[in-house]
Amino acid sequence: MESVTALEVHRKHRGKMEIKSKVPLENDVDLSLAYSPGVADPCVEIHNDPTKVYDYTIKGNLVGIVTDGTAVLGLGDIGPAASLPVMEGKALLLKKFADIDAFPICLDTTDTEEIIRTVKLLSPTFGGINLEDISAPRCFEIEKRLREECDIPVFHDDQHGTAIVVSAGLMNALKLVNKTMQEIKIVVNGAGAAGIAITNLLISLGVKNIMMCDSKGIIYKNRPHGMNEQKEHIAEITNSSEETGTLKDALNNADVFIGVSVANILTKELVERMNPDPIVFALANPIPEILPNKAREYGVRVIATGRSDYANQVNNVLAFPGIFKGALNVRAKDINDEMKLAATYAIASLITPAELTEEYVIPNPFDPRVVDAVSRAVSDAAINTGVAQI
Amino acid sequence: MESVTALEVHRKHRGKMEIKSKVPLENDVDLSLAYSPGVADPCVEIHNDPTKVYDYTIKGNLVGIVTDGTAVLGLGDIGPAASLPVMEGKALLLKKFADIDAFPICLDTTDTEEIIRTVKLLSPTFGGINLEDISAPRCFEIEKRLREECDIPVFHDDQHGTAIVVSAGLMNALKLVNKTMQEIKIVVNGAGAAGIAITNLLISLGVKNIMMCDSKGIIYKNRPHGMNEQKEHIAEITNSSEETGTLKDALNNADVFIGVSVANILTKELVERMNPDPIVFALANPIPEILPNKAREYGVRVIATGRSDYANQVNNVLAFPGIFKGALNVRAKDINDEMKLAATYAIASLITPAELTEEYVIPNPFDPRVVDAVSRAVSDAAINTGVAQI
Repeated sequence: MESVTALEVHRKHRGKMEIKSKVPLENDVDLSLAYSPGVADPCVEIHNDPTKVYDYTIKGNLVGIVTDGTAVLGLGDIGPAASLPVMEGKALLLKKFADIDAFPICLDTTDTEEIIRTVKLLSPTFGGINLEDISAPRCFEIEKRLREECDIPVFHDDQHGTAIVVSAGLMNALKLVNKTMQEIKIVVNGAGAAGIAITNLLISLGVKNIMMCDSKGIIYKNRPHGMNEQKEHIAEITNSSEETGTLKDALNNADVFIGVSVANILTKELVERMNPDPIVFALANPIPEILPNKAREYGVRVIATGRSDYANQVNNVLAFPGIFKGALNVRAKDINDEMKLAATYAIASLITPAELTEEYVIPNPFDPRVVDAVSRAVSDAAINTGVAQI
Repeated sequence: MESVTALEVHRKHRGKMEIKSKVPLENDVDLSLAYSPGVADPCVEIHNDPTKVYDYTIKGNLVGIVTDGTAVLGLGDIGPAASLPVMEGKALLLKKFADIDAFPICLDTTDTEEIIRTVKLLSPTFGGINLEDISAPRCFEIEKRLREECDIPVFHDDQHGTAIVVSAGLMNALKLVNKTMQEIKIVVNGAGAAGIAITNLLISLGVKNIMMCDSKGIIYKNRPHGMNEQKEHIAEITNSSEETGTLKDALNNADVFIGVSVANILTKELVERMNPDPIVFALANPIPEILPNKAREYGVRVIATGRSDYANQVNNVLAFPGIFKGALNVRAKDINDEMKLAATYAIASLITPAELTEEYVIPNPFDPRVVDAVSRAVSDAAINTGVAQI
């Protein structure tokens, strides 16, 4: 059998998603119930009690996948039209893994205020918003403002989905090497959306000694070049010993390397600077910072990548479907830090101590238990923190 | 069997539509083709050649149903959330009748400029835009500007869908009474979106003697009250004899009454002022300007309403699915007047001279020939007028 190509898959039906009816539409009576004149009844009910939009429409199960096409996969700023295949795909993942309906919103603007305003104008139709492939640093402001200004949950998967899966995997990896979050030193290489979110989540999980590197080296307070608002904040909350230097300097006595940067950057020489039992998350795609066979050869105990052809795949599909399902199920008005932490613990604890190995610190993306475990934990955290509305 | 209610139909599945996949998503290989890393291939292709968005995504078969919820059914300004059941229903009609995917865009603003800007920002994802239930006079400006400024077709169904079906029905009714568009006198009662679009289309079909009434009576040039930009234009192109007075005065020697106004307004006394063989389109919903049995009793030859429980139903579903299908099939960049006229003739000519009766001047909405006839005619007109792009 010939193997099909991705282009063939996309061309065969012109795209990957379609709209289907959940109600019969076979005759006059069906039409009179689903459309005029019967449709006036739910309209009136919602007009009289706005919360009924969740009973009579798709809103409560509908997520908008919002992008401006500026940071798509490893392709960069390819624009809204060229990003549509990714957004269709993301929508299908939500359907496949959480039975959530999702729809691509690819915006023809990169203006922060205009993106915020547009999402707010669109929000009556949606139960939640997933921001996708919007470049840093605009993505931080857009997410912050929309979380504040919208009454529906807003989540930036490139930040928090990745952070949650990495943190869950790291929790499990530390069990294997008998270290704790409090005592380890972590180096995060890459200061984009994912790196910053990973750092923030790890700090809230108890990490004390963490530093971030970018192309200019270690980030520290008042570094004179290559800084922005987010890196200034990172400099405040990391690197308390105010070290300077390169990635090589940073890795002295590090326990964990987390790369969200470029291919093949983690050489043998760099690994050898790390503490015993090093743990590596090499998430550059498609070619990681170090290949798993090399990492093992250099003494790395646990290696995770973004790739499905190696063990320990950091795949956001472990997080975002259950997170949105958990939020939508209790009509949460936000996806807050506690909900993200709850998702992290839920993913980590799916692997029992007896099952845990160096090759299995992260559950398989197709493990059917994942979405339920994550969504229940997220719903509970929403209820506990008072953001659930039912 | 208990009959179900419209509320039950809407509540059963929480809304009426869902998103489905057209591609398999069962394993790692499927995911790697539909999503990362394979999805990068169509992204790159589109980035290199923007027209390929039609080959690799849903855009070419996707219509946005855009509303601000200000003129929903007969309910008026109920807002974007309460309008969502109608927009979901409209989307399903496009799927059912033309296999077009459509999605509701319910905007939380009534500002003309903001609606225009938002639709333009959203347009990369869509192959066409249907404006729905936006109140007059803003709907005219919004449609005009979007037609000028977008590179995809924009259609306001409340205007043109109604105008096309009414005009097709009138064409056929005139054959029964042996009158022509050129010689008849028409009175349109109601100066909203539908009334104005009907008047414009009938004039382009050759009608010379037409006048419009609103709640203040006959519209004439420089009428001192109750005018707006659209009515000033109507006063210019109708009522060339510059008559004044009430609907009663207007109906003297009229051949055709077209009501897009209020229930029961067309009394026996008014019908008796009309010429022999009067034709009446009584489109107020749910209660027409005159009920069909009364109309016949008073001598009306052909009566059409908006209701499915009487003969000659003016149902927009006869027009908009085929119009969008015809436009999308040739990637038309506009839906122009010639395409609307082509749709009108296509609908009218589906009824052969042998089939034509007073009870059958408009095809049945479920007649399977309609969408193909309309879409072919519309595609041809798009090609002939140079707006087709393939």
